[in-house]
Amino acid sequence: MQNFNFHNPTSIIFGKGQMKQLDSQIPQNSKVLITYGGGSVIKNGVLDKVKTELAKSPREVIEFGGIEPNPKFETLMKAVEIARAEEVDFLLAVGGGSVMDGTKFIAIATVADEFKGEEEKILGFGFGPVPVKRALPLGTVVTMPATGSEMNMGAVVSRGEDKMPVMSPLTFPKFSILDPELTYTLPKIQVANGVVDTFVHTVEQYITYPAEGRFQDRTAEGILQTLIEIGKTTVDNPTDYDARANLVWCATMALNGLIGAGVPQDWSIHMIGHEITALFHVDHAQTLAVVTPAMWRMRREQKREKLLQYAERVWNIAEGSEDEKIDAAIARTEEFFHSLGIKTRLSDHSINEAGIERIIQNLEKHGMVKLSEHGDITPDVARKILQKAL
Amino acid sequence: MQNFNFHNPTSIIFGKGQMKQLDSQIPQNSKVLITYGGGSVIKNGVLDKVKTELAKSPREVIEFGGIEPNPKFETLMKAVEIARAEEVDFLLAVGGGSVMDGTKFIAIATVADEFKGEEEKILGFGFGPVPVKRALPLGTVVTMPATGSEMNMGAVVSRGEDKMPVMSPLTFPKFSILDPELTYTLPKIQVANGVVDTFVHTVEQYITYPAEGRFQDRTAEGILQTLIEIGKTTVDNPTDYDARANLVWCATMALNGLIGAGVPQDWSIHMIGHEITALFHVDHAQTLAVVTPAMWRMRREQKREKLLQYAERVWNIAEGSEDEKIDAAIARTEEFFHSLGIKTRLSDHSINEAGIERIIQNLEKHGMVKLSEHGDITPDVARKILQKAL
Repeated sequence: MQNFNFHNPTSIIFGKGQMKQLDSQIPQNSKVLITYGGGSVIKNGVLDKVKTELAKSPREVIEFGGIEPNPKFETLMKAVEIARAEEVDFLLAVGGGSVMDGTKFIAIATVADEFKGEEEKILGFGFGPVPVKRALPLGTVVTMPATGSEMNMGAVVSRGEDKMPVMSPLTFPKFSILDPELTYTLPKIQVANGVVDTFVHTVEQYITYPAEGRFQDRTAEGILQTLIEIGKTTVDNPTDYDARANLVWCATMALNGLIGAGVPQDWSIHMIGHEITALFHVDHAQTLAVVTPAMWRMRREQKREKLLQYAERVWNIAEGSEDEKIDAAIARTEEFFHSLGIKTRLSDHSINEAGIERIIQNLEKHGMVKLSEHGDITPDVARKILQKAL
Repeated sequence: MQNFNFHNPTSIIFGKGQMKQLDSQIPQNSKVLITYGGGSVIKNGVLDKVKTELAKSPREVIEFGGIEPNPKFETLMKAVEIARAEEVDFLLAVGGGSVMDGTKFIAIATVADEFKGEEEKILGFGFGPVPVKRALPLGTVVTMPATGSEMNMGAVVSRGEDKMPVMSPLTFPKFSILDPELTYTLPKIQVANGVVDTFVHTVEQYITYPAEGRFQDRTAEGILQTLIEIGKTTVDNPTDYDARANLVWCATMALNGLIGAGVPQDWSIHMIGHEITALFHVDHAQTLAVVTPAMWRMRREQKREKLLQYAERVWNIAEGSEDEKIDAAIARTEEFFHSLGIKTRLSDHSINEAGIERIIQNLEKHGMVKLSEHGDITPDVARKILQKAL
């Protein structure tokens, strides 16, 4: 097992009707900025519920809506201006990964004197922590299970064709309310995206090379097996509480640091996928579904032992040669994604050889030239992976 | 899945040589009380290493040794007197579960004006939080993997023949340093105890009744499978780093709230075991090894579905009738404990029918009259369970 530090201070409040705990989580007499996305939380009544709870104590509440999927720097800076002008002291994200991620950026940018007037530089630290001394405290009410942002310190923010990570231990949410029922009204495709996103978060920390992280491996396998069991059910029957609850909790557990502590991590699927989203506006999860099978086919040797373990433990594939088992596991993964209505080829998204070249150029532009758990995915290797996904 | 709140703010520092992070974890200019047990940390040099690290910043350091297994109220109150007199502001537990548990009590009692002069009342709140406003901050350097105390808010303190839980969210360690190498010098029996303790912590949160906690179930199963794989290895080959690292991390994960969040919990094995330890001075883990198989044999119907799941998923028992599978799983569990050198009968500890009556009397005295996930283990049922363990 590798050495590691693990610290996750977010308070999780999980289950039916847990919105009633919201009032007790935010200081009285605070000035709260509620952030949300395109307005579904208005239509489905979640925003009203939030405001009703916040009104139970003396506090001022203002709102900022319109944070888009793959939240844009420019949009978020509008919220920053409001938070500064109104002297907001608590942020409450009501939404999915994009709203939570965007709110983490707002939490930093609003009070980061270090970056005043050049907030775009906050996007320049990759997976390292943004060097700031403080951030506004934030909480979340989660309406879409997928990104794990509700229990981690990471965000992804877009600026033009750049989709950049933003990390800070100051942006762990103070609390996150996870009521599976709040996600019932999601469009099916977004639930399917959530299943795939959670699945690929998990494999990025699992299908690498053996490192004697037995707890971590088995916990990752448990998430994958659960997703396989409940994925199609929760897409097809959105009000099946237990299926949805298992998706919601797995989404959180897949990216809160737990399964990745003490083991190698990859993340090349994500880095390549980010460029596809930024250039071609394909949903994040759908880029992952395209890159994952191609990555494994291309990286079969580097990942052989873990791909075999995946085949045997997650898919219960006992028959055949090593390569047959690996092939079967990749095929089963693709079938699983297809069963959710998610495509797995670049051509499904009208991306061709010329598109691949644009993706490669952007990887180079963003310094993504030594990806993977071995640091050996150069742009040339990434090109070959993408060609396998055509 | 059941509703739950989950919050665990302890910072984990895991791996070889991680003692070097100690200095950065405790405020400079603080006055630290190091607590430890019977002196093994002096002999094996761990205490010296701790003091060397603490000396890297200006801070005052004093020591309190002699915290015994099943730490006694009277012993701990001596440390409380010292902490008060010396105006200590940080506690550092260097040891195993007893030292960490004892230090949590010291953290509360030293500054609990609510209980001044009647600190024994701190032991009177069972599994509910002790009603105090503050506690001294504490950290731990773990030298024995077993209790999970390094990443939870619980402790068990003994007073006469009473062995009582003490819980407070104020006693989560600020940090815990888990270097598997610091545990290499443990006597084999203590390592075996640690394996069994971790195993039974896990089953108390897993072998109950189905509740659609799929992540929780699989994570619990992962801990159990890991213990089965590495248990004997780490007892027999104490310096096998990876085996020991997996034990250490599983011990922490088994009792940090994670696998029990959202699912039913039992804890009757522990409550009955505590009485055996208090009366007959049998090691905690060894009482669990005695009660567990008898509990499952007696509670076969109440736990049928989860015992079957345990048989199939943890022991890969595929053949036979339901009852044959359950019998086989219980037998395999006993064999596993035996392989570690741990006995599984009351008679192995010279406890007879008269002894059982004393245990039952103490359960009644401590109000432990409605145990288990169903609240239906009365003293009469507990008697029958213990008779099965004779």
